[in-house]
Amino acid sequence: MNLKPDLELDLKLRLLHGDDVAMGPGKADLLAAIAETGSISAAARSMNMSYRRAWLLVDVMNKCFNEPLVHSAAGGAQGGGARLTETGLAALAQFRAIESAARQAAQAGLSGLTALLKPAHEQSN
Amino acid sequence: MNLKPDLELDLKLRLLHGDDVAMGPGKADLLAAIAETGSISAAARSMNMSYRRAWLLVDVMNKCFNEPLVHSAAGGAQGGGARLTETGLAALAQFRAIESAARQAAQAGLSGLTALLKPAHEQSN
Repeated sequence: MNLKPDLELDLKLRLLHGDDVAMGPGKADLLAAIAETGSISAAARSMNMSYRRAWLLVDVMNKCFNEPLVHSAAGGAQGGGARLTETGLAALAQFRAIESAARQAAQAGLSGLTALLKPAHEQSN
Repeated sequence: MNLKPDLELDLKLRLLHGDDVAMGPGKADLLAAIAETGSISAAARSMNMSYRRAWLLVDVMNKCFNEPLVHSAAGGAQGGGARLTETGLAALAQFRAIESAARQAAQAGLSGLTALLKPAHEQSN
């Protein structure tokens, strides 16, 4: 017996800014984790990501936007602390809103496709 | 001078059916290529995909939906020919419509984020 819903939507949205990804699911999750933990290194740990990788993602975002999204105090990996700027909070909120609008629009169109699908628990037949 | 638009949207939509991906960008492109070429092997070649990989993607789709999406005549890799069934045509069209609706919804929400971004040609500063 398969208890999963018959059809799940997986939507991945990325905003390409020139040659960079200005925002995407990973960067948005990282921003949210920095806001929650108050530190880039703690945010990285919570996402099983290296500090270096997290720092690079923050650096790309800070360069893409008019103002930095993350402000980090001196201390770096050892924990000087980091927080989202006003622009960071706004960018994260707006990206989540865009993701949500796209997901809702997709969800609204699913019924026709769902009607063509087998119930998921029959799919191995 | 960078001629790319300041912000491009990259949206990837997948429909998860139980443990399988019933439809996604690659499968939709494969269906379109089969419709165009009239053969799984030619479609695979046009996508730089192995015949085996294309066949497996078709097999997953055929198992997820009530009716097969692709009907292939005897002949296999040597080219017995393949075509989309009515269900295949409907599934492809509906997936494209869902993708398009999601992209439009995302695009409509971009202006706020765009206002926070540097012009793309300044991003290396």
